[in-house]
Amino acid sequence: MWQSETLCNTSAHHDGSPLYVSDPSPGLGERVEVFVRTAGALGVKRLYVRTSPDGEPRFTEARIDRATQDETWWRAPVEIVNPECGYRFLLHTERGPLWLNASGLRRTEVTDAADFTLTAYPPPPAWAADAVIYQIFPDRFARSDRPRGPLPGWARPAAWDEPIPYGRPEALQQIYGGDLWGVADRLDHIAGLGANLIYLTPFFPARSNHRYDATTFDRVDPLLGGDEALRELTARAHARGIRVIGDITLNHSGDGHDWFTSAMGDPRSPEREFYYVDGDDYATFAGVRTLPKFDHRSAELRRRLGRVMARYPDEFGLDGWRVDVAQSAGRHGGVELNDLVAADARAALGEGRLLLAEHQFDASAALRGDGWHGTMSYAGFARPVWSWLALERATEFWGTPGPIPLYGGRDVADVMREHAGRLPWRSYTHNLTLLDSHDTARFRSIAGRDRQHLGVALLFTLPGLPMIFAGDEVGVEGVHLEDGRRPFPWDEGTWDRQTYRTYGELVALRRSRQALRRGGLRWLRAEDDVLLFERAVPGESLLIQVSRASHAPVPAPCALSSLTGGPDLRPGEPMPGDGPAFHVWEVAR
Amino acid sequence: MWQSETLCNTSAHHDGSPLYVSDPSPGLGERVEVFVRTAGALGVKRLYVRTSPDGEPRFTEARIDRATQDETWWRAPVEIVNPECGYRFLLHTERGPLWLNASGLRRTEVTDAADFTLTAYPPPPAWAADAVIYQIFPDRFARSDRPRGPLPGWARPAAWDEPIPYGRPEALQQIYGGDLWGVADRLDHIAGLGANLIYLTPFFPARSNHRYDATTFDRVDPLLGGDEALRELTARAHARGIRVIGDITLNHSGDGHDWFTSAMGDPRSPEREFYYVDGDDYATFAGVRTLPKFDHRSAELRRRLGRVMARYPDEFGLDGWRVDVAQSAGRHGGVELNDLVAADARAALGEGRLLLAEHQFDASAALRGDGWHGTMSYAGFARPVWSWLALERATEFWGTPGPIPLYGGRDVADVMREHAGRLPWRSYTHNLTLLDSHDTARFRSIAGRDRQHLGVALLFTLPGLPMIFAGDEVGVEGVHLEDGRRPFPWDEGTWDRQTYRTYGELVALRRSRQALRRGGLRWLRAEDDVLLFERAVPGESLLIQVSRASHAPVPAPCALSSLTGGPDLRPGEPMPGDGPAFHVWEVAR
Repeated sequence: MWQSETLCNTSAHHDGSPLYVSDPSPGLGERVEVFVRTAGALGVKRLYVRTSPDGEPRFTEARIDRATQDETWWRAPVEIVNPECGYRFLLHTERGPLWLNASGLRRTEVTDAADFTLTAYPPPPAWAADAVIYQIFPDRFARSDRPRGPLPGWARPAAWDEPIPYGRPEALQQIYGGDLWGVADRLDHIAGLGANLIYLTPFFPARSNHRYDATTFDRVDPLLGGDEALRELTARAHARGIRVIGDITLNHSGDGHDWFTSAMGDPRSPEREFYYVDGDDYATFAGVRTLPKFDHRSAELRRRLGRVMARYPDEFGLDGWRVDVAQSAGRHGGVELNDLVAADARAALGEGRLLLAEHQFDASAALRGDGWHGTMSYAGFARPVWSWLALERATEFWGTPGPIPLYGGRDVADVMREHAGRLPWRSYTHNLTLLDSHDTARFRSIAGRDRQHLGVALLFTLPGLPMIFAGDEVGVEGVHLEDGRRPFPWDEGTWDRQTYRTYGELVALRRSRQALRRGGLRWLRAEDDVLLFERAVPGESLLIQVSRASHAPVPAPCALSSLTGGPDLRPGEPMPGDGPAFHVWEVAR
Repeated sequence: MWQSETLCNTSAHHDGSPLYVSDPSPGLGERVEVFVRTAGALGVKRLYVRTSPDGEPRFTEARIDRATQDETWWRAPVEIVNPECGYRFLLHTERGPLWLNASGLRRTEVTDAADFTLTAYPPPPAWAADAVIYQIFPDRFARSDRPRGPLPGWARPAAWDEPIPYGRPEALQQIYGGDLWGVADRLDHIAGLGANLIYLTPFFPARSNHRYDATTFDRVDPLLGGDEALRELTARAHARGIRVIGDITLNHSGDGHDWFTSAMGDPRSPEREFYYVDGDDYATFAGVRTLPKFDHRSAELRRRLGRVMARYPDEFGLDGWRVDVAQSAGRHGGVELNDLVAADARAALGEGRLLLAEHQFDASAALRGDGWHGTMSYAGFARPVWSWLALERATEFWGTPGPIPLYGGRDVADVMREHAGRLPWRSYTHNLTLLDSHDTARFRSIAGRDRQHLGVALLFTLPGLPMIFAGDEVGVEGVHLEDGRRPFPWDEGTWDRQTYRTYGELVALRRSRQALRRGGLRWLRAEDDVLLFERAVPGESLLIQVSRASHAPVPAPCALSSLTGGPDLRPGEPMPGDGPAFHVWEVAR
């Protein structure tokens, strides 16, 4: 199949990055120049861009912008006629016509699914592309000695070093006593690592330690230090150039929520319409009785949720939100308001703030329109990386029955490309990439120490907003999602210093290189044990090689300066074939 | 790539046909049983169906329904929780997990794009699946001696045998004088061919012979015999079991339309908001000044168009519509109301009537929701067939620059499967399939006589509602879309009798076999010069082989009785390797 044959065929390339698109965030009615590079060997005689203004296909011939011995750069205009403008290329070659879309080159007629896409909706905040995210589960990061609210009845106090009884109800009731003051006190650690965006899992009062069953959105949980602690945290973080986003569930509340209590207690209460109430029964999330599902047909509910979304940024300095269970919010039977939930959230939040959504599977439909800036990239990043690097077969894989499927490197690149290819480039590059989270086992427990470092290398060199789940950087383990929520080990003697250094170096590399934060992506090699790809912006091109085992070396395509402590390479010198290992080079000019 | 390797691998199959789905048109809240067959050699240990109720992925284990030595049939429930229910299968095999979706078997994680889909929206009329469509361009089919309105000023009378000056403005002004009385007088011919649904291109008054630039929707063009002729035609057709659908443009009107005249003549007229008027300027379709674009934000416009859509079925007995330029209707810059146009049209039409839409490219987005029953399958049927069977390279290929790309059989099956796989089965099987139309050259002029017959064999044996453009069946040629609109040659001496017989036999075969009208589709072989596939319903299974050249024969997989005049085959006997040729067999029981 052409697509796969040419996966690592660099004979023609385009993506949404600045090398190939003159303006990644155009306005409606503007005109963008798009560029395609084609290898001389492909024999391209003419090249057209196909757009679909107002739904009607239109072909515009490209002209040659510049050419070298080896390749030709073509240039064509794309008019931003509609808020989402899909486009792809038709190449007339000596061997016949070829299509180029975000899934690669194809001889046969493709569907629109993998068209490149420019959108005229307002862009994410400019700072987002520079983010290195640090995820904190507030109860487990750091205790302070500041006063906190009393322990609620459902809670069981736990010592900081107490094991988590994962898989048992008590695992959700243990309170280790981390709080937001504690986070504020440990900004040195976060800044030292190079992270610049804290993502806090929920801080609203609830009936569990994960707090995804909020009992109110009116205040920060006193157990975490209350409103004052959040204000203090964001102020101190901002002073150090660190931003903070929260976590909210728009799909449901807890059954202890003020609104739900009113709804069930009084059929005439204004909150009755916030839920799908039928007598004493009500709709729930995934059949869990403690999680009554919101009915977004209620304009008053939407207004109130919008107020919450706006209030914490406005009054507490929050820089955005991660939205829990976004894939289900607004969806119930014949009611399909998921797009509205996303658009409402974006509108409430306003400009300059980041809106990310949980999405466990194919998020392409959710990333159209004017909603989420990005989603959590489990499907397009975390799972293929697990499948490539898992040492042992885990029994659970994000709810998919059976063991972790095992991939070769080609599979990884195929899956990443297929998932990425269905998203506008801007959404793809604003997806939150991760190796693990509070919702998974720890990646280190899946992949082992050496391969963890390979995953980290991919995390910080591939497109996306990379997230570290607090503790990953010092070697915290956890074989199950609840087990992974282990309290942060502040005794540095227990840390894996090599792991910590690896994180620090890769974060620093990312933060120092535009190509890693805003660059295009070209897959150059994808074999069982090795992935090689280019990230590039105008004036800066990096090659990244990640190998899970030793493999046949190939000659360096050009002069390369190592950024990871290895020797520099002259063109034609063999690139390293060692593994497990990773290397990053800058293409010398 | 697994997908392609297994294209003709029958090791696992599911589609939306009655063999595999207990109810193709379930209601919301119902439960459908879905079936998968897997070959023993695949070593499936467990099988799950993955659904996404309210957006949340759920896996349900299938149980074995029945098993033979060679294959196992699995059965699993799918709850119709939402109006569109995507589902796919996860197979745990001895070699690892596999995904099965509408694009086939894959080792790696797939996106949702090719999920199988059941929809709870009201189904198309039951009669539609039995349709054999006969397309008539009214000015070119048959003259009557009944009185007609006078020739308008723009028109140039033409003799029935006068060549068409295609590519010149006069080609749109020639009036050959066919009318709807003429159609009614020639129902013998249509019925004799076995067609049972007439699709008339527009009958509204206009300023061109194609009439896609309507000047009113209030009456049938007097040149065609007026309202009375349409009433007479539908009545006489219905009496013979033949239905009739019309053709309307919801994207734009002609600039001579009553509404447009009012809109431009009086800024305060109610029709002003029907168009995108800006002073003396206005938005157009594809830049053509004579085709002002409708602004569907106007509720009054939508109401009036709805009234037109309902009136002709209600008052004239029309059985539905084909909607012109459906891919653009309701779309203009930041205005995106295409789904609303489709849903409005469906609602206006009511149950029991057919709603088809023109769509030149990937129609998958347009076939979600409660809109068109199907679209014209240029992308998923006509173009791959042209690419397989074209003898010479035409200079124009549906507006795509360059010559017709040339495919092998594998490409044909790949493209058909990729396009079909993105649609709900019910939409896919209600797409209008065609070899040519009033908008293309005649297929015979592209493929030549022998290969035309191969195309006809594919047309009547693959899924879809097959359409004959009047004249195809007797060998009418035409090298350009306007040239293809040649008047029907009523002198039988000029007919290609073999072509006519081929059409008649294949139409009769289709009309006599449920498997061809409602059956599932399994690709069994797809090589450069041969396509072999199965169509089956419970109790009836047909194999179809179409070859463009001679090829290596393979053994018959089972006992086969020829339905096309060839010898019956015992299992293992070589299937014919001749070509160009087509064969249809029934699997003997």
